[in-house]
Amino acid sequence: MIMKTNRVCDLFGIKYPIVQGGMAWCSGWRLASAVSNAGGLGLLGAGSMHPDVLREHIRRSKEATGKPFGVNVPLMYPQIDLLMRVLAEEQVNIVFTSAGNPKTWTPYLKDHGMKVAHVVSSSRFAAKCEEAGVDAVVAEGFEAGGHNGREETTTLCLVPAVRRATSLPLLAAGGIGTAGARRAAEALGAEGVQVGTRFALTKESSAHENFKQWCLNLGEGDTRLLLKKLTPARLAKGAFANAVEAAEGRGASPDELRGLLGKGRARRGIFEGDLDEGELEIGQVVSLFGEVLSVREVMDELTAGL
Amino acid sequence: MIMKTNRVCDLFGIKYPIVQGGMAWCSGWRLASAVSNAGGLGLLGAGSMHPDVLREHIRRSKEATGKPFGVNVPLMYPQIDLLMRVLAEEQVNIVFTSAGNPKTWTPYLKDHGMKVAHVVSSSRFAAKCEEAGVDAVVAEGFEAGGHNGREETTTLCLVPAVRRATSLPLLAAGGIGTAGARRAAEALGAEGVQVGTRFALTKESSAHENFKQWCLNLGEGDTRLLLKKLTPARLAKGAFANAVEAAEGRGASPDELRGLLGKGRARRGIFEGDLDEGELEIGQVVSLFGEVLSVREVMDELTAGL
Repeated sequence: MIMKTNRVCDLFGIKYPIVQGGMAWCSGWRLASAVSNAGGLGLLGAGSMHPDVLREHIRRSKEATGKPFGVNVPLMYPQIDLLMRVLAEEQVNIVFTSAGNPKTWTPYLKDHGMKVAHVVSSSRFAAKCEEAGVDAVVAEGFEAGGHNGREETTTLCLVPAVRRATSLPLLAAGGIGTAGARRAAEALGAEGVQVGTRFALTKESSAHENFKQWCLNLGEGDTRLLLKKLTPARLAKGAFANAVEAAEGRGASPDELRGLLGKGRARRGIFEGDLDEGELEIGQVVSLFGEVLSVREVMDELTAGL
Repeated sequence: MIMKTNRVCDLFGIKYPIVQGGMAWCSGWRLASAVSNAGGLGLLGAGSMHPDVLREHIRRSKEATGKPFGVNVPLMYPQIDLLMRVLAEEQVNIVFTSAGNPKTWTPYLKDHGMKVAHVVSSSRFAAKCEEAGVDAVVAEGFEAGGHNGREETTTLCLVPAVRRATSLPLLAAGGIGTAGARRAAEALGAEGVQVGTRFALTKESSAHENFKQWCLNLGEGDTRLLLKKLTPARLAKGAFANAVEAAEGRGASPDELRGLLGKGRARRGIFEGDLDEGELEIGQVVSLFGEVLSVREVMDELTAGL
């Protein structure tokens, strides 16, 4: 064993500096607890949960693992105060916030004794994290699935920039689903990784089987950063993404895109498996994967050489 | 010294597996010979040279270095047959081809005893390289400056995919300008790197001083992949790129974009230093650099730990 002291492991009380991204419609208690039981940090994806559903998933996670786990909260969540109250009431220990300003909720979470990590897509926001009292920063690049930054900075360019901007424990995200990419992230200055796509396609993920199987057949170029005039998101090419791309090529307005997007499409695509009408969020690295594995198998692969 | 046998070094007869990208308007004999003299592989950028200018630069390179150097040829070059004849007549030993099908010219170049590398942005084209008899593959990601692939695959996702697709010696390109990124590329399976942007901003680069100084002030998000309806290119934000981006947001047609682009804009921007009217090609990694260095200083930084 050549494992050295690692600030990410120390901060969260975990064995391996590998965090499973808290993804909408994929990251329920089964996935999060399996990752935590395997020595990583599992995160519940609160973005797709009503506050009461989140409470249920927190309780189930506690039953399913004695190890640390956390919750990802996208700060653009509409009833964010209700969600935050649940985190406090259920005495969650670790929260990853994303898609918003780290200054807004970090004091509240810290006051309730939680460790807080924040996801950024620029070094400017990494500096804000430090001012906000965040405990760790996740630098997530252009290749990541789902919601994404406006500056399109890739993980390879972003991680060194964020490393310069902050001395906080740093995790890399976006494009990381193999031990090789984990080692690459470390070479860039990251102390750990957050892995989304590879875990979205595990047996324990709550994504629909249609979605998983279809994703495993995607190749390079089959995901796109779209909806840039609203909130940019990386989507897999399917009927909905193709319609968005065509509309954007014509110069569609934000209002037209909002109309096209409508409501509940991510649920329909990822959770209900409707590949035509659904919004199918997945990372670019999906092209490397060919089968649904168990969390344990993914963790074995990711920790190779650790 | 812990240097192991390296196929890229063996193939080209160089000390370090570091290739300087053959960039339009930056990569003349001064830059290429300085890189070769420092133990890397310097490439002339034939894309911005008339055939007779290329001949002159090849001859000057031979005078300036006794070490191996090469020429990059974008296969979309209008008088490509004239350029190829110059390569043969001047007995160039190493050619990197890009922006086209590797099958078209590789037999000619191999028949003239040259080593041939080809730049790809997908694993599909890497497989074609192998069929074409190419000697090495450069996998260049979305973050690279100038002409770029349509699939937007980042270096972090592309290199492992190309590594699976071919057993040829593999170089990574796009987003690589530091020793950390070089090591990251190796972790992904690359055996060497091609570095553009960092060398474009050296003393020996033939880019205009205005261009170099202006590039050094660019931050994250200040380059964009534009002109996607023509040939995608990564441009730094300036008056011209902003006009293109605005036109694309309105859904501009390929014809409208061609009119906006006109002729000779890269020369005006990069070589003549016209930051308003010029097309300013540079990679995303530019945000990490703050000063013009000599080639020797860049090579010392890139080879740290080798």
